[in-house]
Amino acid sequence: MPALPDTQSERDTRHVPIRHAGVSALRYPLVIHRADGTSFATIADATMTVSVGATERGTHMSRFVEALHAVHDQMSEDQVLALARTLRTKLKADAASVDLQMTWFVLKTAPITGGQAFMDYKVSWSAIAEGRTTAFRTTVILGVATLCPCSRAIAERGAHNQRGMVTLTVAAKKPVAAESLIQLIEDSASCALYPLLKRPDEKFVTEKAYDSPVFVEDLVRNIAVRLRQHRGLTGFRIEAENLESIHQHNAVAIVTHNL
Amino acid sequence: MPALPDTQSERDTRHVPIRHAGVSALRYPLVIHRADGTSFATIADATMTVSVGATERGTHMSRFVEALHAVHDQMSEDQVLALARTLRTKLKADAASVDLQMTWFVLKTAPITGGQAFMDYKVSWSAIAEGRTTAFRTTVILGVATLCPCSRAIAERGAHNQRGMVTLTVAAKKPVAAESLIQLIEDSASCALYPLLKRPDEKFVTEKAYDSPVFVEDLVRNIAVRLRQHRGLTGFRIEAENLESIHQHNAVAIVTHNL
Amino acid sequence: MPALPDTQSERDTRHVPIRHAGVSALRYPLVIHRADGTSFATIADATMTVSVGATERGTHMSRFVEALHAVHDQMSEDQVLALARTLRTKLKADAASVDLQMTWFVLKTAPITGGQAFMDYKVSWSAIAEGRTTAFRTTVILGVATLCPCSRAIAERGAHNQRGMVTLTVAAKKPVAAESLIQLIEDSASCALYPLLKRPDEKFVTEKAYDSPVFVEDLVRNIAVRLRQHRGLTGFRIEAENLESIHQHNAVAIVTHNL
Amino acid sequence: MPALPDTQSERDTRHVPIRHAGVSALRYPLVIHRADGTSFATIADATMTVSVGATERGTHMSRFVEALHAVHDQMSEDQVLALARTLRTKLKADAASVDLQMTWFVLKTAPITGGQAFMDYKVSWSAIAEGRTTAFRTTVILGVATLCPCSRAIAERGAHNQRGMVTLTVAAKKPVAAESLIQLIEDSASCALYPLLKRPDEKFVTEKAYDSPVFVEDLVRNIAVRLRQHRGLTGFRIEAENLESIHQHNAVAIVTHNL
Repeated sequence: MPALPDTQSERDTRHVPIRHAGVSALRYPLVIHRADGTSFATIADATMTVSVGATERGTHMSRFVEALHAVHDQMSEDQVLALARTLRTKLKADAASVDLQMTWFVLKTAPITGGQAFMDYKVSWSAIAEGRTTAFRTTVILGVATLCPCSRAIAERGAHNQRGMVTLTVAAKKPVAAESLIQLIEDSASCALYPLLKRPDEKFVTEKAYDSPVFVEDLVRNIAVRLRQHRGLTGFRIEAENLESIHQHNAVAIVTHNL
Repeated sequence: MPALPDTQSERDTRHVPIRHAGVSALRYPLVIHRADGTSFATIADATMTVSVGATERGTHMSRFVEALHAVHDQMSEDQVLALARTLRTKLKADAASVDLQMTWFVLKTAPITGGQAFMDYKVSWSAIAEGRTTAFRTTVILGVATLCPCSRAIAERGAHNQRGMVTLTVAAKKPVAAESLIQLIEDSASCALYPLLKRPDEKFVTEKAYDSPVFVEDLVRNIAVRLRQHRGLTGFRIEAENLESIHQHNAVAIVTHNL
Repeated sequence: MPALPDTQSERDTRHVPIRHAGVSALRYPLVIHRADGTSFATIADATMTVSVGATERGTHMSRFVEALHAVHDQMSEDQVLALARTLRTKLKADAASVDLQMTWFVLKTAPITGGQAFMDYKVSWSAIAEGRTTAFRTTVILGVATLCPCSRAIAERGAHNQRGMVTLTVAAKKPVAAESLIQLIEDSASCALYPLLKRPDEKFVTEKAYDSPVFVEDLVRNIAVRLRQHRGLTGFRIEAENLESIHQHNAVAIVTHNL
Repeated sequence: MPALPDTQSERDTRHVPIRHAGVSALRYPLVIHRADGTSFATIADATMTVSVGATERGTHMSRFVEALHAVHDQMSEDQVLALARTLRTKLKADAASVDLQMTWFVLKTAPITGGQAFMDYKVSWSAIAEGRTTAFRTTVILGVATLCPCSRAIAERGAHNQRGMVTLTVAAKKPVAAESLIQLIEDSASCALYPLLKRPDEKFVTEKAYDSPVFVEDLVRNIAVRLRQHRGLTGFRIEAENLESIHQHNAVAIVTHNL
């Protein structure tokens, strides 16, 4: 069989460098290995790209899938950084980026009865390899309970509360464990969510939320105050969105620091 | 130019009748004309299909778009039924169905201060023309507030509450106005949602919800009790889903009657 | 501490039986055990409900999570049926239903070069326990390639093709393996999708699709013809939706048989 | 009635300035007035925020809805800028931002038969008022057809093609009409999508796409080349994502210039 033409490797004359070219919406099974030696299986929604120089026509998309497959069962923060470097080299690019959004489970314990079940979070690892440098960001997305301080102050009984969604991205010299970010956010809300609550637990979380009202603005500030005490962070972005129980629309607040 | 081949009109030998063949996810601008002479513009997500007999290969997809375009600015419940009959005839089918899911706005008044703004709902009209008969269903989807009776009973202060989503479908001999179904559902919840609330309004809705606790099971039952008193209904399906403020998952309840 | 009130166990006087009451959108980690002794980890989006009699106020939502947690690492078709029976008994209900929608990975081999990588599918297991009887359904959702026969017939060069999504539900006396349904659907399309294709593979799939054109109507019929030869099925529903490459809207076809 | 407490106006001691606080996911009916005097109705998904100084506790969420309602039937690019300035003043903030994502319809004509119908696009207007300055961005999101140059070069017949989604954001001193950006993008693809195509049209678009193959990298570059000739732009970001007809995952490319 004669060699097939390699269209992607043609020379390009439009003089437009491309920041990112690659694959997205690639769902892949992963095994995550933690620093403490434990591991667990999860599923990622992956985006992987490289830069394409002004005179190259395109990149070779199949190599992204090959490179992820080669390491999918030995994944860690370090491995994601290594994968970005591998892609940069393999595809002869100036820069490569890997973004894995994963479902993350934490075994949570009911606050009074002690019953245990898994609660799901979203955790993203984003790595960029550019020239000799690398950068890494961790994002966590989770639900929390928020109880409105204004509603509590003005109503003679009750106070509206709701599920709120928090998205926190941190940049750090050394990757930060997702679990510590999750804990920090849950401590900043009116109350954490739980997968399994019996009546004594439900009494506890209802009263705890009533005793800890936060506006969406308070929530992002409480998180910011805790993050300031976190050494090694070089930047963060905090977004909270309340699925208001009195409106069809949401309330939102965003704090950014060097990001 | 010689005539192009008409592949869709070929004879089929697989002996498989097709219940529905047509277009989906077609977004289209509509003008809705109400019985009282008023009208308003909205946008539909349309699905339109016909049945395909066991010996016909396929249908002609462009005719669905033509038929909707011809009546898009004069839409009403009657028009949707007429459109289904038109498609059945035009495409020489035994049956035709039209489903329009529309965003629907109601100008809502804040309960104490009287401020006004629009709140959005989803309303679907579904029409089927089969042989000489037609059938029609109206669906409304909306958010309401629900406050947990158990939480209120066991907690010394406060009670968890949240946004709940209700989906109600009714079949009736004569189309039922979406607004009357919306009102009936909002009356069945702990409190309605509002687009615009000042502090006196927020005090009112907080206390009203606290005074009207409903489980997700209570909500579907309250709606069922009201629907029973609605003459002319031949069937209904009620689904409520609470975006729990104490869990990451939802609570759900469904009641069906002849549907 | 005095006993907390049990609001859910109160007597109800509205005389409305509830078909389904329970939890939805519950994401949970599972380990699936296949009949051949192999196993793999995945994540489910779970809905679990019971019926609530006309005189009972509500169900106890935490028990669904407990029951799933107890068996989450030993899941199989039989286990889902057992879980439905357990819920029916534990919650003293007439009927219980369990629906698990899971991401399902298959290691696929490129048709010419033999490269391997995982491709994702959606597989649902639905079990109902009602009185002494049980029912089980398997649903698979997957993407395939479809090439338009009309476009091929009328154009002098090329033919439009696109990604199509197929949703197949089957009811059977004995659960049917998801992989066999997936294979059957991929064989019915213009070509299967692959996670990893090199140029010789891309040449193969391009030509194979061109040589095997299917309308969305052909696709559902090809699947129906193959399902008829599948012993033990008591019913099926086939839906195909083409993400048309010439339209912003989709083309859809549905065939049903006893479902 | 005694005055209700105004919790939002309390003094804050956490020293965390908030970049954005406001409402999101607010669906609202709009009437758009074009420069040429024509107008049309549509629906927006609105996000509106203000900055909150380090010593203020929160903002007053109801005022966003009031301000949008006051101008919802007289909307234009200038009006969005005015709305951002109004919010900044009304809420005594340093900065205010308004983002409206709207469904946008264009009456498209079939290339050969001349049949007409509406096709839907997404258009966003984003305005920021900060101090005395304002900034404005227009985003368009649309589907196009892309045919793979590699597939065409290596296959003896046919070539895989698919729907691709393009997201283009431009910053300009003077707002750029959405329709001109849409046209520019459609001219950069293998072929535009159409809502209504008869067989002679389908022949035309099939052959046109075959004669104009573009990688996802070519697509963003073709758009970049055309944007360079567009005077008055101060920056742009182009993202294209192909819903590959040979993969379950997508191919993506991004070019940015001062944005």
